[in-house]
Amino acid sequence: MSVFRNNMADEAAFQFLHNEVIQYIYKSAESGETENGRHIAKLENMGFRVGQGLIERLTKDTARFKDELDIMKFVCKDFWTCVFKKQIDNLRTNHQGIYVLQDNKFRLLSQLSAGKQYLEHAPKYLSFSCGLVRGALSSLGVKSIVTAEVSIMPACKTSREVLIKKSN
Amino acid sequence: MSVFRNNMADEAAFQFLHNEVIQYIYKSAESGETENGRHIAKLENMGFRVGQGLIERLTKDTARFKDELDIMKFVCKDFWTCVFKKQIDNLRTNHQGIYVLQDNKFRLLSQLSAGKQYLEHAPKYLSFSCGLVRGALSSLGVKSIVTAEVSIMPACKTSREVLIKKSN
Repeated sequence: MSVFRNNMADEAAFQFLHNEVIQYIYKSAESGETENGRHIAKLENMGFRVGQGLIERLTKDTARFKDELDIMKFVCKDFWTCVFKKQIDNLRTNHQGIYVLQDNKFRLLSQLSAGKQYLEHAPKYLSFSCGLVRGALSSLGVKSIVTAEVSIMPACKTSREVLIKKSN
Repeated sequence: MSVFRNNMADEAAFQFLHNEVIQYIYKSAESGETENGRHIAKLENMGFRVGQGLIERLTKDTARFKDELDIMKFVCKDFWTCVFKKQIDNLRTNHQGIYVLQDNKFRLLSQLSAGKQYLEHAPKYLSFSCGLVRGALSSLGVKSIVTAEVSIMPACKTSREVLIKKSN
């Protein structure tokens, strides 16, 4: 197997499965305004549990974290790499419990075609990942609210900037 | 990140998500005999579509396959590695369209605890993967029936032998 092909397809199984889950959840019921909210919540919950499981496995042999910032750094590096095969590109904080994690090339949006109409579909592609982060933080003792937004209209399919915001 | 930790957690995101999907599908409705069959079919279908997507990505730059055996070898090596980070351990064929793929350490069963009672739950942990193989083969022009069985009572959690059988 060539290295090139391997790299490209490394996270593909996860990505394709994620898409199937979204489609399955959205297909299985009517899609009113309320229903949409419930689907988002379901995806967020799945992400939460996946995040819990992953962080427990990842931190099994890790020394205790010294503070919240230390935890956030771990999420940005080790945790994000485990799921998305890349690190978070930028971490900002107000040092009062708000953190903004920026991924300049967010994989789970790459199936979504560019264009204005995609904006309305973005939440369903982001909620699983919000849950992921919330679950990971929760298992490390940090209660949080995690939201996400697509910050910049993507120029090409593989470069989607996503901001993930953690607040108390 | 240590290499050890990385290796261990490499396919974990996919594995945890797979478990969530099973739980979600099984939770979402009653669980009679018929329902169970429908859930299995749903999982198989999700696997089918994931398999199609993956194989299309994997074979994008690949030369044409010379025959069915060649295709099966690709599935055992490249395709299986892409999803499960390891190759199929053994491939047998009767040279009349039946192939048996053996994975001595099948990851998607590792969450299932050992014991007799697990046997009844095995199908729901195998059907997605049957779909995966069927989808991959289908995209390569090979129509098939794919079944799976757990061949040996596992001695330890991480060594589950699974036989995947492809017939026409």
